[in-house]
Parts: sequence; structure tokens; C-alpha cells
Amino acid sequence: MPAPDDFTVTPYEVKGRIDYARLRELFGTQEVTDELRARLRRLAGGDLHPLIARGTYYSHRDLAHLLDRYERGHPFFLYSGRGPSGPLHVSHLAAFDLCRWFQERLHVPMYIQITDDEKFWARAGLSREETVRWGMENLYDILAVGFDPARTRVFFDSKSIGALYPLAIRVARKIPYSTVKAVFGFEPSQNIGLVFYTALQTVPCFWPSWAEDREVPCLIPCGIDQDPHFRVTRDIAEGLGYPKPALLHSQMIPGLLGDQAMSTTGSAADNALFLNDPPKVVDRKVKNAFTGGRATVEEQRRLGANPDICSVFALWKTRFAESDQRLAEVERGCRSGSLLCGECKLSVLERIHAFYATHAAAREKAKEWAESAIVTAAPKPV
Amino acid sequence: MPAPDDFTVTPYEVKGRIDYARLRELFGTQEVTDELRARLRRLAGGDLHPLIARGTYYSHRDLAHLLDRYERGHPFFLYSGRGPSGPLHVSHLAAFDLCRWFQERLHVPMYIQITDDEKFWARAGLSREETVRWGMENLYDILAVGFDPARTRVFFDSKSIGALYPLAIRVARKIPYSTVKAVFGFEPSQNIGLVFYTALQTVPCFWPSWAEDREVPCLIPCGIDQDPHFRVTRDIAEGLGYPKPALLHSQMIPGLLGDQAMSTTGSAADNALFLNDPPKVVDRKVKNAFTGGRATVEEQRRLGANPDICSVFALWKTRFAESDQRLAEVERGCRSGSLLCGECKLSVLERIHAFYATHAAAREKAKEWAESAIVTAAPKPV
Repeated sequence: MPAPDDFTVTPYEVKGRIDYARLRELFGTQEVTDELRARLRRLAGGDLHPLIARGTYYSHRDLAHLLDRYERGHPFFLYSGRGPSGPLHVSHLAAFDLCRWFQERLHVPMYIQITDDEKFWARAGLSREETVRWGMENLYDILAVGFDPARTRVFFDSKSIGALYPLAIRVARKIPYSTVKAVFGFEPSQNIGLVFYTALQTVPCFWPSWAEDREVPCLIPCGIDQDPHFRVTRDIAEGLGYPKPALLHSQMIPGLLGDQAMSTTGSAADNALFLNDPPKVVDRKVKNAFTGGRATVEEQRRLGANPDICSVFALWKTRFAESDQRLAEVERGCRSGSLLCGECKLSVLERIHAFYATHAAAREKAKEWAESAIVTAAPKPV
Repeated sequence: MPAPDDFTVTPYEVKGRIDYARLRELFGTQEVTDELRARLRRLAGGDLHPLIARGTYYSHRDLAHLLDRYERGHPFFLYSGRGPSGPLHVSHLAAFDLCRWFQERLHVPMYIQITDDEKFWARAGLSREETVRWGMENLYDILAVGFDPARTRVFFDSKSIGALYPLAIRVARKIPYSTVKAVFGFEPSQNIGLVFYTALQTVPCFWPSWAEDREVPCLIPCGIDQDPHFRVTRDIAEGLGYPKPALLHSQMIPGLLGDQAMSTTGSAADNALFLNDPPKVVDRKVKNAFTGGRATVEEQRRLGANPDICSVFALWKTRFAESDQRLAEVERGCRSGSLLCGECKLSVLERIHAFYATHAAAREKAKEWAESAIVTAAPKPV
């Protein structure tokens, strides 16, 4: 009998030291292989998004099948979302940045869901006004990643319910309470909003097929912790006559304090770089960030440091190394002891500040078209 | 220890011989007393709706309190609804007819909810197209009862979801799954649509208060089997800052075959007079209806018949006796043996056919304004 796994990964809880290869086995997903990476590189015109090239997106369901169809001229669309409970942090943008890259390279539509209803149901302390306000603020940040206004549509749940509900009615009949309870581990005290919610999170996966009366497959880049949500979706797809969504799963992006995920729930705000942090706060957080460095400079020079457990190296890897070569240099310097943590932090901070400035400008532009991207009408009455 | 009750009354099941006084005790509701009837008669300008005068509406929650406020100049509104699974039958109109009377006499608004989503979730055999189509057909029949277009608004769930959802989000957070399970007796295999549904059925009770930013109390005339739905509503009202809805409960109206309710689920279609039944079918159903008559004419002349168990007498009592005097005459003739069942049936059939003709004309008129009565926009964003 194998030893029990000492980690837990669900949409509502990530704990323990995650063995990602084992998690893929447990979930029964497929590996992002060198062959699949080479294929994506070719389809994208020669390069690969860093989050795929560097292994953060490492697992999938049916991505190869989706690409087979794409190569036969069958378009797909991208779907990702956000539960608005507060400001976004840098790693929240990872999946969206990957989506933007797919959109740009493969010319496919993007659907973004802002789940202001879900967050209100999931967090007793949040008011409706807050979830709606954060929903719009988060949407500006998401669109600022560089989505094409002509190919990007938004479902803002409370504003888009008229567009979502006719399909949600059909979806909800297919999902028994027992499934939701098993997948999400809900207690009987859970409110009926959150119980219903998985129906609304499923709707965008089928919406373009419904609206266009033809099969439009869906690709969902997401943290592997979100996989259970979409297993429910995949299980009911055929019964409704829609294609199963394909998934592309990322590992969790570590937090600045050395946690395994840049999570904000139940951990200090210093664990994450929020997009609304002022420059001084960004400086402080990065300077205090957990690294793989040694106790003394002398020791580090002699033995080198460990990038595998370092939150600053994770920043380089997931966003701020402008090239794979640059990332390799940082890693070499780190392991060899030639690059000290303070120096490394200053170097990544330069890039972080530049990113914040670019992002702020793009965000102002995004505000101009955000409202018009929100879908409010159903494509058909039933 | 008292004997266990040998009847069951829930929103999804009515069985056994119902002891209505006992049911009121079990549910903890108040009696419609002579004093309350006298008060209603006075407020209505001197007469009383037959369904109240003749005791069909026999139980309430907080109606006296609602009238206290009404007399102090505080308006209320009426709310009733329909789950569209097929054609309406005559007794479906009872609650609406009572609402029309309240609207006419007390000049109050009426809100009608058509729950096309709920019926789709509750009946596996119904398609969405069917629930929507029956929803509109049923709505024409309901409006034909004589509602005032200026004071009548409709929530047709799938069309009105944009108006209902912002408030439904708040309501749903207040209702745990355990409550819904206990009140409705749902199994784990129940779909998450029906689990969520009670939130949407609650929304109209609070909607005018929400829309107008002031307390607008609600009065719901309904079958006593529907009381559990609104107990949930009453329990959460204060926590949301809205007044508890008042209820006025009717006894079940017996079916033509002698069942205790003119129910169509699981019983022969001959148990009910559908509003779309052609005259010949109406004739056949009434002629075959269960009565309290005797085995032979001779016996009936000698011993009289029993109106208490008679489905034809129920037709007289709940709609077709144009006056209490007329009803008393029918009852006297029945008990004394002077009125035979065949004769009595012909007499009520005359009135039924006249009603069908009037109703058909009113229905055509109602079609003209039905669509415009449907509320589609939320009064405020959050």
C-alpha cells in the first residue's frame, strides 16, 4: 500500500507540500510533454509563452484533441474568470496572460467571467457593493493584460445573468446536490447560492456553442486546484450536446513568504504583490520576501543558494525574466553563490516597477471599453 | 400520547384525509375568525369574496397585522404564482380570483410569478420549450381573471431574471442547504436548480420594498400546502431588513373524482376541469364526477345525499354558486333528497359553460398586455 499523500488540493483548500506529478496521477490528467510544447510553439509561430516553456502549466485534459480540431480548421475559445473579493495580485494575472497569448497567436475569442455572486456567497464578510466594486476593478486589471476588444467578451454574473440564465437552467437540472457535495466538500450549513453556483460557472463553457448553434470547444487555463469544478462540467457536457471543455493546468505560484500559493486567504497581505500596492509597499514586500539564501553572505558565496524554494526566483520564472536565457543566468548565479539575494531582489524589483507602470497605463485604456464588453442579453429566449 | 396524524401535507405531497383544523395546529397558523371576516367585509365595502365567506380560505399568518397597517395608511401588495407544467384547471384560478378581489376592493398592486425554471427542475419529463410555452399560456389565463393592467406586474422567471437576481443573491446567502432539505424533504439526488429555487420564490415577497426603498408588506393567498415555502421566507425577512409576508391559506379544492385536491400529478386528467377543455369534454367530466349521491334515485329521495364529500358541491361552493343563498339552496336540496345529482350537474354545467365563454373572451384581451406586464429590469444595480 503506498504511503498516504500528505497534501490536499481542492478549489477551496490547498495545503501540505504538493507533489505535482503525484497530483496529476491522482486527478487523472495528462502531462504537458515536450512534444505538446513543440506543437504549441509551432502553432504559435515559433515561440512559447514562458508559463508553458518553463513548466508552470504542466498538466492538461484534452488539449491535444482540441489542437487536432483547431488544425482541421475548427475554432475554439478561451475561458477564465475571477471571484472578486479584493485587489488582484501579480500571480492572478498568470492565467490571463497565457490566455492573451493564445488569443494573439491563434486568433481565438476570450470569455472572462467575473463571479461577484459566488464571492458574496463564499465570504460572509463581503457586502454586495464590495463584490460588485471589486468585480469592476479586477476586470480593468484583467483586460489591461492586453486582450483584443474585438475578440473579448465578459460575463459579469450579476450584470450578465440575463445572458447566462437560460442555459444555467438546463445545466442545473443535470447536477445533483450529491455531486456538488462530493466535489466541493460542502457541509449542510452551506448556503444554497454556493450550492447552485457551479451551474453558473459551467455556463460559459457551453455558451458559444449554444449561441452559435454549432460546436465551439472551450479551453480553460487554470490552477490545478480548480480542476474539480470543471470535472463536473465535463461530466454533463455530452448529455447537453456540447463538447467537453479542455483544461490546461498550472502549478500553484508560490507566495512571497514561502507559502506554496500566492494566496491571500488566511495569510498575511505581505504574501502577495497586489496590483494596487504603491511602489514603496512593493519594495518592502520584495525586500522581506522569503528566499532560498543562506544564513550569511560568506556561506552563500561558498555554498550557493536554492532557487527551488525561493519566492523571488518564482517571480523571475513566472513573469519577470524577459527570456529563458535571463532566467538561466539568474538560476546559475543563485546556485553558484555569485548572485546574492539582495542584489537579485533589486534586479527583479526594477522589472516589477516597470511592469506596474506599463500595467497602470494599460488599465486606464481598458476602463474605456470594459463596460461595453459585458454581455447582457441572451442570444435566444430558451 | 395523541394518535399520529394519518395525513401528509407538503409543497410536494398531499395525502391522506386532511384534518384541516389539526393541520392549522401543526403548522402553527391563525384561524380566519368571524371577526376577521367581518373586518374584511367592512374594508371591502360591504361584501366578502365567496372563497373567504364560505370558508375555503380558513387560515392565515399575520393578516390582521397587515390590515392594521393598511388601515393606518400603509399599502401592501399581493403575490401569487404558478409553476407552468401544463394547462390550468378551474381551481388554479381560485387564489388569483381572490387576489383580483383584493386588488379591486383595496386598490393594491398584484405581482404574479411564473416559475418556468422551477417546473423544468421539478419535472424531468418537461422540456424548456414546454415550460416557457405553458408559462405564457397560463399567464393569459391568470390575467383574464380580471387584473388591472395598471396595478399588475409579472415575474416570468427566465425572462425576469435580470430583475430578480440582484435580490436573489442576497436572499440565497441567508438560506442554508439544511433548511431546504428539512422543509422540502429533498434527497441528495435532487438537482441544484430546485435546491436554489426557494431563493427565487422568496424574492417577489421583498422586491417592492427593495425597489421602493421603504417597507411594502406582502400578502400571499395560497394553498396551505405551500406554507412551508414561505416559512423559510418569513424566517429570513428581518435579517434582510424586509417585512415578513402575511399568508392567507386555503384548504385544498377537491378533484372531480373525489380526490382531496384537484391535482393533476399522478391522477387521471378527468379529475380536473382544464381551461382548455372543449365543451364536450367538460360535459363528460362533470357527468362522470364523483358525488355524495346514493346508489338509487329512490334511496336518494328518501335519505338525501351528502354534499360534504361531493366534488360537484365543491364546484358550487368554490366558484359557481353566484350567491350564498344559491349555495344554501343547493345544499338544502341535496341533503333533503329533492335535488338529484343529474339535475344538479346540469345546473352547474350551465354556469361552467357560461364561465368558459366569458373567460375565453377575457383571455384574448389579456394577450394584448401580458408581455408588457413582465418586469425585465432591476430597479437598481445591487
